[in-house]
Amino acid sequence: MAMKQAATAAIRAFSSSVASQSSPLVRHLHASAGSKKIVGVFYKANEYAAMNPNFVGCVEGSLGIREWLESQGHQYIVTDDKEGLNCELEKHIPDLHVLITTPFHPAYVTAERIKKAKNLELLLTAGIGSDHVDLNAAAAAGLTVAEVTGSNVVSVAEDELMRILILVRNFLPGHHQVIKGEWNVAGIAHRAYDLEGKTIGTVGAGRIGKLLLQRLKPFNCNLLYHDRLKIGPELEKQIGAKFEEDMDAMLPKCDVLVINTPLTDKTRGLFNKERIAKCKKGVLIVNNARGAIMDTEAVVDACNSGHIGGYSGDVWNPQPAPKDHPWRYMPNQAMTPHISGTTIDAQLRYAAGVKDMLDRYFKGQDFPAQNYIVKEGQLAPQYR
Amino acid sequence: MAMKQAATAAIRAFSSSVASQSSPLVRHLHASAGSKKIVGVFYKANEYAAMNPNFVGCVEGSLGIREWLESQGHQYIVTDDKEGLNCELEKHIPDLHVLITTPFHPAYVTAERIKKAKNLELLLTAGIGSDHVDLNAAAAAGLTVAEVTGSNVVSVAEDELMRILILVRNFLPGHHQVIKGEWNVAGIAHRAYDLEGKTIGTVGAGRIGKLLLQRLKPFNCNLLYHDRLKIGPELEKQIGAKFEEDMDAMLPKCDVLVINTPLTDKTRGLFNKERIAKCKKGVLIVNNARGAIMDTEAVVDACNSGHIGGYSGDVWNPQPAPKDHPWRYMPNQAMTPHISGTTIDAQLRYAAGVKDMLDRYFKGQDFPAQNYIVKEGQLAPQYR
Repeated sequence: MAMKQAATAAIRAFSSSVASQSSPLVRHLHASAGSKKIVGVFYKANEYAAMNPNFVGCVEGSLGIREWLESQGHQYIVTDDKEGLNCELEKHIPDLHVLITTPFHPAYVTAERIKKAKNLELLLTAGIGSDHVDLNAAAAAGLTVAEVTGSNVVSVAEDELMRILILVRNFLPGHHQVIKGEWNVAGIAHRAYDLEGKTIGTVGAGRIGKLLLQRLKPFNCNLLYHDRLKIGPELEKQIGAKFEEDMDAMLPKCDVLVINTPLTDKTRGLFNKERIAKCKKGVLIVNNARGAIMDTEAVVDACNSGHIGGYSGDVWNPQPAPKDHPWRYMPNQAMTPHISGTTIDAQLRYAAGVKDMLDRYFKGQDFPAQNYIVKEGQLAPQYR
Repeated sequence: MAMKQAATAAIRAFSSSVASQSSPLVRHLHASAGSKKIVGVFYKANEYAAMNPNFVGCVEGSLGIREWLESQGHQYIVTDDKEGLNCELEKHIPDLHVLITTPFHPAYVTAERIKKAKNLELLLTAGIGSDHVDLNAAAAAGLTVAEVTGSNVVSVAEDELMRILILVRNFLPGHHQVIKGEWNVAGIAHRAYDLEGKTIGTVGAGRIGKLLLQRLKPFNCNLLYHDRLKIGPELEKQIGAKFEEDMDAMLPKCDVLVINTPLTDKTRGLFNKERIAKCKKGVLIVNNARGAIMDTEAVVDACNSGHIGGYSGDVWNPQPAPKDHPWRYMPNQAMTPHISGTTIDAQLRYAAGVKDMLDRYFKGQDFPAQNYIVKEGQLAPQYR
C-alpha cells in the first residue's frame, strides 16, 4: 500500500504535538497506586488484521500498547464481545480500573455497569464522541471520562465532504449500473448536480464543522452554519460562512444539510418528522455525527416520499446496525458502517492519544484540558 | 428537487459571461446562406426525461433549442442511434450541415463519415473533448470543430475530487456491506486512509487540473503536476503545487494519480504496462479524461495484482461500455458511466454554449477563440 508511509509520518507529527501540550504535574483525580486492570473493547479484524502493520484500532492491534502496558506490570484485556450479561466485557466489569472503548464498536457503559464496576476510575474513548457512556451516571460516580479530542476530526470532515459530493453528483446509481452490466447516463444525469452554487448548512460548527467549511471554501457554495457560538470573526471571514442563530430558519435554505453536533439529551431525536418537514424538498442530508440525532422512521419516510433526496452517513442507532435496520433499505441512501473516524491515520493518532493519557494517569498527571468529557462530576460544555 | 433553482441561477450567470465575450463581426469561415439541416446525437432519457425540466442534455431535451431553430426555418433532427451503417445518424450524414455530438454518448465521426458528409460545415461538441471526431480528417476537409470550452470543467473537477476521496477512504466496500446486510468495520478500515498528508499528482494541469488543485488545497496534501506548461507563478503559489517536468519521475512519488490530459495521438495508451509499473505500489488512479489513455488490459492486470490499489473514472473505451468490459469486473474499481461533465448544471451551460455558437454561425460571426478545436485546417494546440 502506497499510503502506509504517509500515514506513519502523519502520526509522528501528531504525537509530538500531543507531547508538547505539557500540563503542570498534579496528582491525578482518580489515581490509585499499583498494578491496573485495563480492558479495551474494539472491533475484531480477523483475516484483515495481518494486512496492514498500522492497523492498530482492532482487537488484534490492541492500539499497539500491550507490550508497553505489560512491561509496567499492568493487566490488559481486549475483546469485541460487549453485549449481554454473559459477554466477555461483563466478566471484567467488577474489577477493571480502566475501560477503553470506541465509537465504532461501542461498548454501552450503562448506569448499571457503572454501579457494578467498583474499581473503575477512568473511561477512555479511543476516538471522539462518548455518548455510549451514561455520562451523568459516570459523573455521579466520580469517574473521569476522556476522549482523544482532535484525533480524527480531519478524518471525519474529509469523509463528510466525500458524502456531500456522492449525493449531489448522484454517484451510486452510476456505480450500480457498472456492476450490473448496464449503461444509462440519463438514469444518473437527471438528478446529478454540481456542488458549485448550492447552499450547504452545517448544524454544529465545532472542530469537525469548521474543518468541513474550510474544505468547502474553494467549491464556491453558499455556506451557512448554526451553533451555540459564532465562529471567531477572522476564521468566519476566511471561510466565508454565514452564522444562523435560529436553526429552524436555516433549514429551508439548505440544498445540503450536514449534522455536526454531539449526541446529548438536547440533540437526541432532534431531526424528527416536524423538523425534517422544515427542510427544502429534496434536501440532501449527511450525518456522520450520531444516528440517534435522527428519528429513524422519520428519515425512512422522508426518503420514501422524496422529501429527503439523499441520505448518507456512517452512524446508526444502535451499532452494529442489525440486518433489518430500515436505513439499509431506504431509497437514495449512501450509508456505510461507522468508519469515517477510524482510518489508519486516525487509528494511529487516537492510539497515541490513549497511550499518552494512560501514561499521565499512571504518573498522576492531568490530561490535555480539551480531552475531558467528565471531570470532578462535571460534564464538558458540549454535553450539558 | 432542492437543486433546480440553484442550477438555473448558475446557467444564467454562465450565459451572461458567454455573451460578454464579444468578438469582431467577421464572416464565418464556413457560413453558407439559407436553411440548415442540423443533427444532434444525445443519450436517450426515456422515463427520466420528464423528471426534471432542466434535463436538456438528452434526446428528449434536445438542448432546449428546437423551437428557436425551427422558428428560423432550420431543420433539427435528434437521435441516440449512432452505430453502424443502418443507424438513424447515418441516414442524415449525406445532407446535414451541422452535427452536434457529446462525449457522453459519442457519435464517432470517422474519416469515412466525413467523406460522405458533402454538406457538412460545422461539428459542435456539447461538452468538452472532441476526440470522438477524426480531427485530422476534419481539418483536411476544411471543417470547423468547436466545443463549449469551460462549460463543464467545474463539474469534472468536483467529480475527480469525489473519486479521490472514495478511493482513499475505501468507501465502496462499506456501502456494499450495508446493502448486503453486513457490518464489518475492519473489512473497510484496514485500507482506509485520510487524504491529508498524501501526495497527489495530476498528469495535465489545464482548466480541469487547475480547478482540481485549487479544491485540493485545504486538504493539506503534497500536490504535484505535470504538463507541457508551468502554471503561472501567482496561481502556482496560491495552489501550492509543484511542477514536475518529467512525468515518469513524478509517478513513483504519487499516492494518488489523476489523469487530466486530452486524448491525442501522444496520450493514446500512455498508461501501458511499463508506465503503470513506474507508479508506487498501491497507487490510486482517477481518470475522468478518456478511457483510451489507459491500456485497458494493463489496468485490469495491475488492479488484480494490487499494484493499482484502486481505479475510478467515468470514461471507457468504447462508450457505451459493453457488458463484458473488463473494468466492470476488476477489483477495487469505483467506475460509473460517463457522467461527470453532464450534471444538470453542466447541461444548461453547454446547451447555452451550443446555442451561442449556432447563433454566431448563422450570423457569420466567429466563435469565442478558446472554443475552436479545428479551424482553417489547424488543430488546437492541445490536440497537436
